Amino acid sequence: MQRIAMLGGGFIGRFYADSLHGQRSRDKVVAIYARREETAKKFADDYGCSFLSTNMEEVIAHPDVNMVCIALPNNLHAAAVELCAKHKKNVVCTKPLGRTADEALRMMQLVEEAGIFGGYLEDLCYTPKFLKAMDSVRNGALGRILWAKSRETHPGPHSNWFWDKEQAGGGCMLDLGCHCVEIARNFIGKDVKPVEVMCWAATQVKPIEAEDHAIALVKYENGAIGQFEVSWTFRGGMDLRDEVMGTEGTIWINSFLRTGFEMFTTGKGADYVAEKAESNTGWLFPVGDEVNDLGYNHMFTDMFVSAEEGRPPAETFYDGYIVNAILDAAYKSASTKQWEPVQLPVWRGREGLTQETTLTEYDADHYLIKQEMTHDGRNKLILKEKATGKIIERDLA
Amino acid sequence: MQRIAMLGGGFIGRFYADSLHGQRSRDKVVAIYARREETAKKFADDYGCSFLSTNMEEVIAHPDVNMVCIALPNNLHAAAVELCAKHKKNVVCTKPLGRTADEALRMMQLVEEAGIFGGYLEDLCYTPKFLKAMDSVRNGALGRILWAKSRETHPGPHSNWFWDKEQAGGGCMLDLGCHCVEIARNFIGKDVKPVEVMCWAATQVKPIEAEDHAIALVKYENGAIGQFEVSWTFRGGMDLRDEVMGTEGTIWINSFLRTGFEMFTTGKGADYVAEKAESNTGWLFPVGDEVNDLGYNHMFTDMFVSAEEGRPPAETFYDGYIVNAILDAAYKSASTKQWEPVQLPVWRGREGLTQETTLTEYDADHYLIKQEMTHDGRNKLILKEKATGKIIERDLA
Amino acid sequence: MQRIAMLGGGFIGRFYADSLHGQRSRDKVVAIYARREETAKKFADDYGCSFLSTNMEEVIAHPDVNMVCIALPNNLHAAAVELCAKHKKNVVCTKPLGRTADEALRMMQLVEEAGIFGGYLEDLCYTPKFLKAMDSVRNGALGRILWAKSRETHPGPHSNWFWDKEQAGGGCMLDLGCHCVEIARNFIGKDVKPVEVMCWAATQVKPIEAEDHAIALVKYENGAIGQFEVSWTFRGGMDLRDEVMGTEGTIWINSFLRTGFEMFTTGKGADYVAEKAESNTGWLFPVGDEVNDLGYNHMFTDMFVSAEEGRPPAETFYDGYIVNAILDAAYKSASTKQWEPVQLPVWRGREGLTQETTLTEYDADHYLIKQEMTHDGRNKLILKEKATGKIIERDLA
Amino acid sequence: MQRIAMLGGGFIGRFYADSLHGQRSRDKVVAIYARREETAKKFADDYGCSFLSTNMEEVIAHPDVNMVCIALPNNLHAAAVELCAKHKKNVVCTKPLGRTADEALRMMQLVEEAGIFGGYLEDLCYTPKFLKAMDSVRNGALGRILWAKSRETHPGPHSNWFWDKEQAGGGCMLDLGCHCVEIARNFIGKDVKPVEVMCWAATQVKPIEAEDHAIALVKYENGAIGQFEVSWTFRGGMDLRDEVMGTEGTIWINSFLRTGFEMFTTGKGADYVAEKAESNTGWLFPVGDEVNDLGYNHMFTDMFVSAEEGRPPAETFYDGYIVNAILDAAYKSASTKQWEPVQLPVWRGREGLTQETTLTEYDADHYLIKQEMTHDGRNKLILKEKATGKIIERDLA
Repeated sequence: MQRIAMLGGGFIGRFYADSLHGQRSRDKVVAIYARREETAKKFADDYGCSFLSTNMEEVIAHPDVNMVCIALPNNLHAAAVELCAKHKKNVVCTKPLGRTADEALRMMQLVEEAGIFGGYLEDLCYTPKFLKAMDSVRNGALGRILWAKSRETHPGPHSNWFWDKEQAGGGCMLDLGCHCVEIARNFIGKDVKPVEVMCWAATQVKPIEAEDHAIALVKYENGAIGQFEVSWTFRGGMDLRDEVMGTEGTIWINSFLRTGFEMFTTGKGADYVAEKAESNTGWLFPVGDEVNDLGYNHMFTDMFVSAEEGRPPAETFYDGYIVNAILDAAYKSASTKQWEPVQLPVWRGREGLTQETTLTEYDADHYLIKQEMTHDGRNKLILKEKATGKIIERDLA
Repeated sequence: MQRIAMLGGGFIGRFYADSLHGQRSRDKVVAIYARREETAKKFADDYGCSFLSTNMEEVIAHPDVNMVCIALPNNLHAAAVELCAKHKKNVVCTKPLGRTADEALRMMQLVEEAGIFGGYLEDLCYTPKFLKAMDSVRNGALGRILWAKSRETHPGPHSNWFWDKEQAGGGCMLDLGCHCVEIARNFIGKDVKPVEVMCWAATQVKPIEAEDHAIALVKYENGAIGQFEVSWTFRGGMDLRDEVMGTEGTIWINSFLRTGFEMFTTGKGADYVAEKAESNTGWLFPVGDEVNDLGYNHMFTDMFVSAEEGRPPAETFYDGYIVNAILDAAYKSASTKQWEPVQLPVWRGREGLTQETTLTEYDADHYLIKQEMTHDGRNKLILKEKATGKIIERDLA
Repeated sequence: MQRIAMLGGGFIGRFYADSLHGQRSRDKVVAIYARREETAKKFADDYGCSFLSTNMEEVIAHPDVNMVCIALPNNLHAAAVELCAKHKKNVVCTKPLGRTADEALRMMQLVEEAGIFGGYLEDLCYTPKFLKAMDSVRNGALGRILWAKSRETHPGPHSNWFWDKEQAGGGCMLDLGCHCVEIARNFIGKDVKPVEVMCWAATQVKPIEAEDHAIALVKYENGAIGQFEVSWTFRGGMDLRDEVMGTEGTIWINSFLRTGFEMFTTGKGADYVAEKAESNTGWLFPVGDEVNDLGYNHMFTDMFVSAEEGRPPAETFYDGYIVNAILDAAYKSASTKQWEPVQLPVWRGREGLTQETTLTEYDADHYLIKQEMTHDGRNKLILKEKATGKIIERDLA
Repeated sequence: MQRIAMLGGGFIGRFYADSLHGQRSRDKVVAIYARREETAKKFADDYGCSFLSTNMEEVIAHPDVNMVCIALPNNLHAAAVELCAKHKKNVVCTKPLGRTADEALRMMQLVEEAGIFGGYLEDLCYTPKFLKAMDSVRNGALGRILWAKSRETHPGPHSNWFWDKEQAGGGCMLDLGCHCVEIARNFIGKDVKPVEVMCWAATQVKPIEAEDHAIALVKYENGAIGQFEVSWTFRGGMDLRDEVMGTEGTIWINSFLRTGFEMFTTGKGADYVAEKAESNTGWLFPVGDEVNDLGYNHMFTDMFVSAEEGRPPAETFYDGYIVNAILDAAYKSASTKQWEPVQLPVWRGREGLTQETTLTEYDADHYLIKQEMTHDGRNKLILKEKATGKIIERDLA
């Protein structure tokens, strides 16, 4: 059983607590830290915490606590991790791990040196659809992965600190891109090195300093491409989609706006519909079970079972650091307008990969380029002559 | 904490156990009964049960057990409930409750007389989408419910006993229709009396005695219509859809084949895709999290929390009995080709409802029939003159 | 080239004219009849007709006209056909052909005796998706057809006469059911005799005499079932869907609300979205090309090419009469609450069909009921012993 | 009436002819040129052409011909246009116009100097969905356009010349990217100058010289971003999707794989399903009416009506040249790894645009960043203090 201290009583802290106390859970949020006493009190009331404080260290150090869950603004993660290391408390930290790779690497080292458990709360790498997709990718159902795109766009975050570059460390790219980067990295293979990033980012709509729209390509050592599209300017709800192309298949995941629930209402009786929905009349597309469908349940299960079994979870502080390093390169690229190398002072995966070649032998003299049925009924081959490199057509009977 | 005895180690028993032991559950399947020792042993191994037996009463009576979960063929439900009543063990029973309303009513009475907890495992009334839809319906987002249709079709069940009318008590109508009937009844209102049923059923394809395809309309006292479409002859996977029409809105739920996960594969590496999928190449549509998306998690949570708090769950043996009574009328109707009354010796809801009238006043002299924008740009009214009953058109400027 | 007289300048007449003059058409609406001169004038202006009149016979008899298109309220179809027969003008008539089978049969006989061309404008049997589906069905891709359902529901028609039982001859069942009946009949086979109908119909919402919601099952001689669901009480736009089940496959067609075009708008600049849309903000689902997607283009092409080549079109007055006969039985059934026979004084299809049996031989001693991969990895057979009728399970290695 | 000479009797020439002779068309393909006599003969037979030749000039110069339709490999477009100019024949040319902007510009100048009609056959800017989307964008339903993405991927083209860089002039980027570039340019505004391009391109799978996968961002002068994703390595059919984000709305178009037609078949009777489908069993997603849904009908209507009325069509040779210029920059960028400027020696749109600012006044002291309902029921404002730039939260009652 995990006895959890929640650091932060805002939107994401409450979402986490809903998951942690959901269904027939054996775990319990026992303590809450918030910067404002009022927030801490409300949270303690709502979730039945026996201890509350506006002093973070007190909460972390509390003897009832054996797991700390960081749900604070980005600029406070490092300090919280430091205290967990000091008090030897296992810790799980919300995304992004740091504001920069430097910060994230320091957090990783603190945890590793302290010998405590460190889990990176990348919920979108734990959604049921993502997990099922990863199974298929691991089974080879898609062949060699060529491209993995993740998109997260919505009309902007819920709390004021996100909009303040100082506290947040960035705009939508840090806030949402961290999800997308790690999703693509999983599909392509976590042991494949990300080498360089090309990024466009701009402040197109909102009256803020940070970017509210960004798109980037991340090149991996084996030639695969990760792509992200993130924005705080999207209209119509929260758009959460992943797409993967492999030599043998395709995966399309829609995690939020089109999941098999469709409702039209003239507006009577309408209430909270879903995270970041923009309307409560007309056609609406709520998800059934936000905490499960957004991955929180499977994430905490993996975190706590891993902690109890003394093994690393699927998403660690190391992963959080890699994500930050990729985003650092993206920010740099958005400003230099160059492909920027991903700086990885620590790298634990494979090195020296090259792009696999995929030549399909047709016969002794030809490679197969393509075979297809045409709409006028031909069974057509397109072949490449090995000797000459010439491309020819041939019809099968 | 619930210490559960599972009766039945087949397909559904294993599915239940997957849910019961899922995530960070505090509950445990401690004992297993199966008719064949081999099945019981495999189950005990796989799920870590400390007690196994081919003697049902032994399992039910085992002192470690405080909750019995019936996952047996339909013809064995009543005997199992009898033993639970005898040993005063709380019990939850898979669907359908009985093979007939008589049988179900007897089971309900046994439970009520014994003062034990009786939960009806109607999982499809606990899917996350269904629960969210019910919230909207209760909030009035759909206005008055006019029609609720539920459809469950697939290529046929997994175990041989389903195909044997003796053990199963019926064909696809009993097997699948029980879900659909209770879904529609929830949307229309559980306190609204089902009055009569018109049903078509036939054995169109399979070499069996029972029906493999059936469609029925269930008329409720307030004029609302429940509809079900069930079949064991469907090709393409498992089709699970609900549709609801109300005076103010519409709900469409797709619980299985189109839920936002789409995969194409040429077939390499393909494995088990989903319950009742028919193929593992081409375009496939697995759900992310079968035990959650099919309602098992929310169902057991409601059952066990209710049992612990001493209140009835959302789905009780009484509900199971009502469902059986509606299906009895459906079977009778399929044979008499008449609308058949639903026989309800016990009825605990409202009586004497009539259809609500919905007249929308336009002005002192007219009712509004319709207002709309036409494709040639008119803002058009269709009105009914109160005095004459005449229908007229009028254009707004 | 067809020189067309349009009878009726309302909603459907204009829709027809949009199709007739669409793209690079060689045909032309040359004359217009409307009951009100103002309507005729506007139509003539908008579509460039050289002749207009409020005298129907004058328009039909006009020497420039070689094809009459009836786009009038239901109660005026028969009189218009009579005039076409008298003046030996080819005629195409909107749906439903008559208000009853008697009326429709008389119209059919008038046309046949006059030796003129008679086309039944059942546009939904000409939508591109329907035509492609029919090709697949004819090719055998679905095997033997078991069930064909068609659904058309929306918030009610555009013109006042629809709401008046006298002029319309019925409610939503006659207005919309005629489409659905003919769609199902096509899928099941036009030469298969419809034998009886079970129908529920009610006036659930609107302040009218006729039904605003109806559901029916149509049984065909070979055991196949046609189903329709029609309503004027649906909220959310126009729901046009067909579903077909066969022994070898499934078809799902969505012709209107979900066709691959999705738009969200806060409402600026919104205008006419689509036929029977109910909103112009939030998520909207217009079709791309209404006249093509609703079948008008392919319908008129078939009609005029058939007329020019002297052969019957795919949808004839005979088909219109069969549809009316089925709807007559449906109306009767809604009132008697019995399965009512379809009265067909004229029948030109096959007689004496019985249900095909589909026994799949597994080996000398067994029929195959089902083979499947289960989620615990078994390759399982369900077989029926020929000798005993017993159902058994067997696992393949 | 147009009397058309078709140059090229391959896949695209036949597709064009199917559209040109479709429905009740008044136009006619009267002459065919093909490089191989056998191809010309088959085409002439199939489409009823009265003249055929393997001499291109003969066909263009033929007195019956008043419109030339170029459906040839990319390397032959310029020569064909030259002959049209010489013989003063109106001409429409398939996409891409040239292999480079230089070539395309020369073609544009030839046409303009000869005073003949020049239409650019960019069919995907004529699909019914695209046209409807453009209406909404022009009406302002999406507000200011921020981003427009177009994606076309499939398993590779039908004819051998596409795979030969010499004849094709490029790989999937030239073949498919030309569509995507022009789609995005339409949404963003044709008078808005494309300024620079960032592109990734690679040969990931196929044994060819040219790229088989490419992704690019096109920056427009007003800050809007066009994006394309193109590939010949996609598995699962032909993926044709557009997405547009504006300050007031969103558009998602699916033109091929998910358009409301879904079929499952075990495989009996299956035949040609759709352009570039990869399978004919399992779940299949054909479109209803390829020639209409891919834009051919509306395209030729616009072309011929424009030619007859003496005005430019929606897509001209000038547009084709702009598209080539953007693709030239994309190819250069893929090689230099820099944002490359779009070289436009001729530009006829607006100059000097800057990004519009979108500050929403909340009250005298604040700008509005966001207003939303949270899942715990708050109606929350996020505001920016004008004086300090500070971001604050405020709850509305």
